Amino acid sequence: MERLKSGGGFIRIELKESPDERTTEIVTLAKKAGVPYRFCDKKSLDRAAEGGVHQGCIGYCSDFVYSDIDDIFRLAESRGEQPFIVIPDGIEDPHNLGSILRSCECGGVHGVIIGKNRQVAVTDTVVKVAEGAAEYVKVARVVNINDAIREIKSRGVWVYALDMGGEDIYKANLKGATALVVGAEGKGVSLLTKQLCDGVLSLPMFGKINSLNASVAAALGIYRKIDCDRQ
Amino acid sequence: MERLKSGGGFIRIELKESPDERTTEIVTLAKKAGVPYRFCDKKSLDRAAEGGVHQGCIGYCSDFVYSDIDDIFRLAESRGEQPFIVIPDGIEDPHNLGSILRSCECGGVHGVIIGKNRQVAVTDTVVKVAEGAAEYVKVARVVNINDAIREIKSRGVWVYALDMGGEDIYKANLKGATALVVGAEGKGVSLLTKQLCDGVLSLPMFGKINSLNASVAAALGIYRKIDCDRQ
Repeated sequence: MERLKSGGGFIRIELKESPDERTTEIVTLAKKAGVPYRFCDKKSLDRAAEGGVHQGCIGYCSDFVYSDIDDIFRLAESRGEQPFIVIPDGIEDPHNLGSILRSCECGGVHGVIIGKNRQVAVTDTVVKVAEGAAEYVKVARVVNINDAIREIKSRGVWVYALDMGGEDIYKANLKGATALVVGAEGKGVSLLTKQLCDGVLSLPMFGKINSLNASVAAALGIYRKIDCDRQ
Repeated sequence: MERLKSGGGFIRIELKESPDERTTEIVTLAKKAGVPYRFCDKKSLDRAAEGGVHQGCIGYCSDFVYSDIDDIFRLAESRGEQPFIVIPDGIEDPHNLGSILRSCECGGVHGVIIGKNRQVAVTDTVVKVAEGAAEYVKVARVVNINDAIREIKSRGVWVYALDMGGEDIYKANLKGATALVVGAEGKGVSLLTKQLCDGVLSLPMFGKINSLNASVAAALGIYRKIDCDRQ
């Protein structure tokens, strides 16, 4: 629905023959977006879904379209805002990356930068978990995360690693152009990347396990930054 | 590891025959906790795991032990703190409940109250996703969430629903005895429960999808409350 609302990206849509409220809405959106659609029997939908749950509707689309770093800066500029970027470093779990994209979209983050190697790309699972956010958040996929960090620093962005052993994030001032580097579960932000950052920020811990889920940590960082901007 | 460190709960532990750093540490902890252990070949570990990933170690334990509301108040009192409670309302996804328990443990929440019906219990998956937090966080499982809310209100706790359309949580003062009711994905906090609460708090949204993952919303609520207490 979100992908249709944002203007398409579908090659075609197939719907079950007995219309309900939702499929009727999808047809309306498809017409508006100029996406061809047709009605099929349940059997052929089941076959097309290859065992997946389809809820009576299948959209055929091209692969996820990545943005580049310039696109992210342009979006911030067009909104009249300082760039706000999130950099997941080495996240391998598609559920975590999907959840991070979702929180970024809700938090008004301008873009996400991920590396091409040793971390999950924006796969089908990521898109599904992101619950529509992948349609709106700009994701730049770069060969080298550290080069990307050097570039955005040179363009005036303060880059912070979200990791243990740093400054309490609730005492830090995060106003202005900011990027947050979020480490992978268990590994944290890689050492070289951390050294490149302008600082390390930590979430205060009050229990015994001292380890938040990576996507939860990312969301806490994003909303802390928002809170600083609004003060 | 966390369960062993916190004093046991295991009936016995089975380990792979070729010891590595981790299994050696587990043996040390098992000895300390007085838990019997033995070494097995890979085949019998595989069989015991019933197709699950076992990483060379299987612990046999009894079912999760629930606390009651009194236990939660007693824990707060023993720490010299005002009670801080989280109430997941109708969460069905074990990954979300596990993630909520994990964030509660890191945030120093005294206890979690869940209903017996229409939501997931503390299952094996919840315990696994909670990454050790289920060993430390008190979880009370009650027949009726609304009765539980009436009880904690009568004991001086301010109860807030975390849902859309309420007061901006970053402008609310959450000092003192507080409970946060977190709604399920898609459904939010149920109407009757919301009406019982002292107020509705909302996370500000800056995108188009306007919907955070339930466990992410819970974590943002928990850390906002912490930030209020520390100001």
